[in-house]
Formats: sequence, C-alpha cells, structure tokens
Amino acid sequence: MQTPWKEYQDQNQQRFLEEMLELLRIPSVSAKSEHKDDMRKCAELVKQRLLDSGCNKAEVMETAGYPVVYGEKLIDPSKPTVLVYGHYDVQPAEPLELWHSGPFDPVIKDGKVYARGSADDKGQFYMHVKALEMMVKTNSLETNIKFLIEGEEEVGSPNLGKFVGDNKELLKADVILISDSSMLSMENPSLDVGVRGLSYIEIEVTGANRDLHSGTYGGGVANPITILSKMIASLHDENNHITIPGFYDDVVEATPEERELMGRAPFNEKEYKDELGVKELWGENGYTTNERTGIRPTIEVNGIWGGYTGEGAKTVLPSKATAKISARLVPNQSSPNITEKLLNHLRSIAPPSVSVHAFEHHGGEPYMTPINSKGYQAASKAVQTTFGKVPIPVRGGGSIPICSILERELGTKIIFMGFGLDSDNLHSPNEKYGLENYYKGIETIPYFHKFFAQS
Amino acid sequence: MQTPWKEYQDQNQQRFLEEMLELLRIPSVSAKSEHKDDMRKCAELVKQRLLDSGCNKAEVMETAGYPVVYGEKLIDPSKPTVLVYGHYDVQPAEPLELWHSGPFDPVIKDGKVYARGSADDKGQFYMHVKALEMMVKTNSLETNIKFLIEGEEEVGSPNLGKFVGDNKELLKADVILISDSSMLSMENPSLDVGVRGLSYIEIEVTGANRDLHSGTYGGGVANPITILSKMIASLHDENNHITIPGFYDDVVEATPEERELMGRAPFNEKEYKDELGVKELWGENGYTTNERTGIRPTIEVNGIWGGYTGEGAKTVLPSKATAKISARLVPNQSSPNITEKLLNHLRSIAPPSVSVHAFEHHGGEPYMTPINSKGYQAASKAVQTTFGKVPIPVRGGGSIPICSILERELGTKIIFMGFGLDSDNLHSPNEKYGLENYYKGIETIPYFHKFFAQS
Repeated sequence: MQTPWKEYQDQNQQRFLEEMLELLRIPSVSAKSEHKDDMRKCAELVKQRLLDSGCNKAEVMETAGYPVVYGEKLIDPSKPTVLVYGHYDVQPAEPLELWHSGPFDPVIKDGKVYARGSADDKGQFYMHVKALEMMVKTNSLETNIKFLIEGEEEVGSPNLGKFVGDNKELLKADVILISDSSMLSMENPSLDVGVRGLSYIEIEVTGANRDLHSGTYGGGVANPITILSKMIASLHDENNHITIPGFYDDVVEATPEERELMGRAPFNEKEYKDELGVKELWGENGYTTNERTGIRPTIEVNGIWGGYTGEGAKTVLPSKATAKISARLVPNQSSPNITEKLLNHLRSIAPPSVSVHAFEHHGGEPYMTPINSKGYQAASKAVQTTFGKVPIPVRGGGSIPICSILERELGTKIIFMGFGLDSDNLHSPNEKYGLENYYKGIETIPYFHKFFAQS
Repeated sequence: MQTPWKEYQDQNQQRFLEEMLELLRIPSVSAKSEHKDDMRKCAELVKQRLLDSGCNKAEVMETAGYPVVYGEKLIDPSKPTVLVYGHYDVQPAEPLELWHSGPFDPVIKDGKVYARGSADDKGQFYMHVKALEMMVKTNSLETNIKFLIEGEEEVGSPNLGKFVGDNKELLKADVILISDSSMLSMENPSLDVGVRGLSYIEIEVTGANRDLHSGTYGGGVANPITILSKMIASLHDENNHITIPGFYDDVVEATPEERELMGRAPFNEKEYKDELGVKELWGENGYTTNERTGIRPTIEVNGIWGGYTGEGAKTVLPSKATAKISARLVPNQSSPNITEKLLNHLRSIAPPSVSVHAFEHHGGEPYMTPINSKGYQAASKAVQTTFGKVPIPVRGGGSIPICSILERELGTKIIFMGFGLDSDNLHSPNEKYGLENYYKGIETIPYFHKFFAQS
C-alpha cells in the first residue's frame, strides 16, 4: 500500500530517534522521591513535544501526585476520536552495577537503544507522537487524537482514576490505544487481548526490639527471617499451585478451545531457556509456559531483606525482616479481594512471638478486550499491512492497572498495540528497545487511525 | 579480704576508663576490608598498653590475616603460668541508623560505656591488662602471665590455629583465662562452663541470568527468593526441632540432674520478654529458654537479601537471593560435619530450575570445661570474694571457636570468667558495658591469679 507518510518518515528518521533519546536522558523514576524534579522536567518536555508534533493544545495537568500530560489534535467532530494512553515515568534502575552503560545515558548497540524506559514506555508512547507529526505533515490524519501521558504507571497509577473521572468530557474518545506491551517477535507479530491484574503488598515481620547476639539469644527468640520465609514458602504447594484460601475462586478457566488456540503460538522452549540461562523452567503443574505467564494468576516475591547483608559473617539474630510480594491476576479476580486474602494468609502464619506490619502498595484489575471490536480489527489490519502477517491474539502477562479504570470511567474499550519484545529487559538492567521496532511502530500507527476512521 | 591493689585501683580508676575508651575509638572491624588500617592501628595500641602496664615483652606478630598481639610478664619459672586470651577486633556496627551515638565514639550514660566492642571484647580483655598493672605496681603478682590478643575472633579465627601450633612453646601455660562472655547479673554472678560451637554458611540461589519483569515472566521461571524461603522454612518443623537429617546425632543430651540444676538459675520470663519487647518466646518444644539458648543446638538466619529493596514497588522477578545462616552447636557435634549436613540439606531442596552457590564462612567446635579443675575453682573463689556469692555454673550460648583449638594445640584447659551481661547488646546496635562490671572485673582478676598460684 502506497502511503504519503513513508517518505516523510525516512527523511526524519534520525531526528525521531534523537528526540526519543532526549526523553530517555531524564531519570523520571516515580517510585523514588529524589527524582521529583526529573518527573516535572520530563512532563514539561512531553508537553512541548506534543505541541511541536502537531497538537493544537497540550498541557501539564496537576494531580495529587505526579502530573498528567494531556494533548489533543482535533480535526473534525464528525470523525472518530482515538485516545492514546502512555506513561512518562519509568521503573527504578537498580541494581545499577548490572548495567553495561548508564541507565539514563542511552547507548545504541546492535540496532537497539539501551536505556531505562526505552521500551517501557517512553520509546513506545513516543511512536504515537511521531506518527501524529507524520500524519499532520502529510495531511493524512483522518481521526481526532487525544494524548493522556501519565507519570505514575510504575507505582500503580494511584491518582489517575480521579483525574479521569474529573475529566470525562476532555478525554471522551471512541477507542483507547496503548503501546505498553510486547509482541511475540518481529517474525510473529501479535496483539495482546488482555493484561493481568496486580496486587502488590509489603510485609514487615518484627521479633525482638533490637538485633540480638545469635549465640546468647539464638533458639530462644523468634527469628523474623525464619518466620517470613515460612510465610513465603507457604504460598505455593509442591505443584506450585497457590495455597491461599479462595485465591482461585474467581478465576475464569480458559476453555479447551482457547488453550488449543494459545498452544499454536510459536514457542521454542530451548531458546527460551537458553536466553534466560536456566536449565529448567518452573511453574504451576498442568499448564504450559505461555499459559503460566498469560492466563494463570501468579505470586512472586519482588524483594526481601533482613539482618546483616554486608561482607563477611555477623552472628546476629535480626529484629526485622521485610518482603515485597505481588500477585498477577486474571479475569475475574479482583485486586482488592486478592490483596485482602494475601494479607490475611500471611498474617495467619505469624506466631504470637512476632508482630506483623503489612500494607498494600498498589493494585490493578485484570483486563480483556474483545477481538471482534472495530478497534481490534483496525489494529490487526494495521499490523498485517506493515508486517505482512495477521497478528496472533495473545494474553499478556504484565499489568496496566489503569485499563479497567479507563473503561469504567470513559465507557471505552482499550486496544493494545505493543511493539516491544519480551526480551527487552523491562524492569531489569539493560532495558532496550529495537530501532526497527520503533520505526516499524511509527509506520504502523497511522494505518490504525486510517482503518479505524474507515471502519 | 584486705588487698594491696584496691587502693591502687581507686586512685587510677579514671585513667583505666580513659584507656579503654581510647581502644574503643578505633573501628577495628575485622569483617570489612575497609578497616584494614584500623586493625593495624589497634594492634599497635594494644602492644603499647601491654608494655606500659608491666609486660616485659610485647609484640605484634604476623599471621596470614590480621596480626596477633602477644605479651608476657614472666616472674618465676617455678610459678604457674596463666595465658589470657582476648580479641581486639569487633563486629560490624551496622545497622548504623539504630545507634543512639556513634559506635566508635564512646559515650558514658547511666553508668555504662556505649560503643562497639565495649563488652565484646575490648572492655573485657583490657580488664586483664589493668589487673596486671595493679599486681605489678603493688607487688602482688604470684603467677607468670601471657597475653594472646587476636584480631580475627569475629570472623572465626581462621589463622589462629596455625599461629598457636607454630608457637606452642611461647604460649605454654597451665591455664587459659578468657573474659569474652557474660554473667547472669551482678546480683547472680555466674561462670560459663561451656560455649556453643558454630557453623556459619552463606548460600546464593540464582534463577534467570538477569532480573526479569514479574508480569512477563512471573509464573514461568523459578523465583530464587521463593526457593530460598522454602530452604529456610524447611530447617525447622512445627515443634521448632531442626529437620536436617542427622543434625542431632552427636548431641550429648543433658541428664535430668543437669537440667534440674540448670533450672535453679534465676530466670524471670516476664522481665526477659519485656526487655526484648516480645509478647511470646519461641523455641524448641520440650525445653526451657535457658536450655534452648545453652544446651541445645540452634539454627538462625543472620541475614537475607534479594530483588528490589528500595522505596516503593518494583515488579521484578529477581535473578538472585542470598542468605547468611549459622548453627550453634553443642557437645559432641562437630562443626565441619554440621556444616556439610547443612549445605547438603539446603542443596537437596533446590529444584533444577535454580543453581546454588553455597560456602562456609567459618566454624568452631563447642567447648566444655570441668568444674572440678583448679582453674574453675580459682575463678569461682575469686568471684565469690568480690561478689559475695558463689557463682552459678552455666552453659553460655555464644561461641568462641578458638577454644577447642587452644586446648588441642596447647593441652591446656580454658576457664571462662566473663563480666558482661546478656543485655549488653553484643553484636547489636548500642553495645554497652557497665562501668561497675569493668571495675569489678579488674578487682576480681588478681584474686584468680592469687588463688590459682596457691592451689
């Protein structure tokens, strides 16, 4: 298909890249308060780029937390409106010592941009900004476009629900488009039809009121690390099923037909294991790896610490041990319900010889999008046009907590059109995003708008 | 009993204290290589003080690790010789934020010296240095005295065995005297008749070759924190018995008579709990707290870490998790044997989906001293003289790994005469040592020499 924007993209490719790198240089880590000024700086840059790229209005809008950047290019009230959601905040970069180059000092190597946020989500939401520029400059824009770029996705979007509720008219759209996920591979393009929900908690177990000598007191006083370990060990049985009472109650089991369809997605176990450097995979008995990471709920310990963690040996019986634990949820599990069950289960294991302080960090509901919708069909056709293959519908393992809130508040379905790869090291050291993915994404997005306007 | 040294002590009390504080100001942390220069500085100061206090010879003697300080005051080959063992190294001070004053900036409050090493063991071994000075200056010395002050006790004395073996003649003595333990209270003086042994290991569990996104991979790849927690949880059953196969095989069970005698030691459970700030105690079913911490072997996790431990929430499936774990041993358990059993047990729990790297930090054998020996009788009489009560013989929970080595190499029995208290926060923030304990110790030690020489 001959398009007016391909030539424009080729001529401006280098600048499109440089603008992305400029965004990546700002350490907009929402989880760490030391980056407060960086967050503001990043929001201002996003706003400026939206204006530069063709929005006729853009602003940094306050919330109780970090601000939202809103932008719009409205061309004709009779045309459909696409709301693009993305986020300018990024995960913490730690552990820093495992990065091969600075997390906020982007480096291009082997055709990939290495930097925190390159795939999640600066590089991905910015494709939409550059797609807008191309469509405007080549007079190919056939939809109204709105941008909702938030700054708290990586900490669970605690303030976005209220923001969206307060700005329903402003954000009104016919479809919501999100590029914050991945595809199977460039050879096997896919579109997510769902994301998992999330319950993220932290638990602190306290024994004695101070660290003790493990000889003098060892054996006579509860060790909080031992108790916390028993709590964590109790979360899975020998088949790696989760043991929390009622945890699976609301899970909608996939039908044999759905599982059969999922099983057709290409998956090379040897390559998968080699790439991760593990001898064996691990997971819930009775399910394939794709099922375990897509349609099944899971519990992972994200962090743990307690006692002496320095060099050498210290014979201490620690006062405290702490863990961060999160569950991924599938339809129709509810995040508040699972959070409560998880906290109750952990507390029930604590003997009276310790005290427990546990609280929720954040949560989000699982989300599914129908593949027979106009939005999904437009996305599928767009990907087919540029990749030459009909994309495979898959269930993504990650979470975008705001999805269920956006649908509830705006009454609009969400379409996931991610161009990253699972191997992009999201949330890990050496996060990367392929240049080809970036450029292909920018090329594909205008097709979505075109097909959606025509459908 | 009228003694010549009491008046001398009263006149020099303030200086005795100041000299101890000077030692405490040197951060001689053997576990952390950044303190290498401090270790050397501390050894040199100990040598100088030995010379100043009456030794006719003192030197800093090299080992493969930190040096040993040796000193001697030989008065008459026909008199018995007492070898005083102590250590000038200290535990790491972390967690620093819990100290009310600088760990190496000693502060005197409520009659106690607050500083790392005040009780363990600088303040305690230095009592012997000042006791020597008093005996020399008042012409009351009736024994030959040798000092062996090492710099690696807190890291398991890895080089002292060889040193002692290489210097048997130099260190030859009739009894070995150690003040590196505690008594029940000033009102209920006690003497340790044994110390527990130690097996200290570190275990690192590795899953994938990098930290992963817990959504994309969660449920499909082993989580090393979960696996490590299962290992730790498996160490104790529901009765808090240790489950490692063969762990108790060599334990010499205390007889009902011994347990009845131990049960007479004063113990106020309410005070003990209140002081520790716990609602309930914890430990092996079927044993009292004093038995659990004295005659029973135990396993404690001394530290654990893995994944994201910073502020807020990071949805990561970590690559690694690590723990420091140590067992306290009782006669006739053997440290190498238990270390091997512990390592084997932990490895046996690891599924093939993770790799395990485990190694020994250090170990030491349990030790018992007979109460009918000349040395014990001299110590008991000395304490009775200054405290007015026959000390209660008790089994200490801590470990002095060098005991069994000293006895094996030198063929000499060890007497424990500790003046600290369990509540001195050994190995913890705000370590302290009572001024009364320090002065009472200095006053008591010359009686030991006197009674030992006369026995």
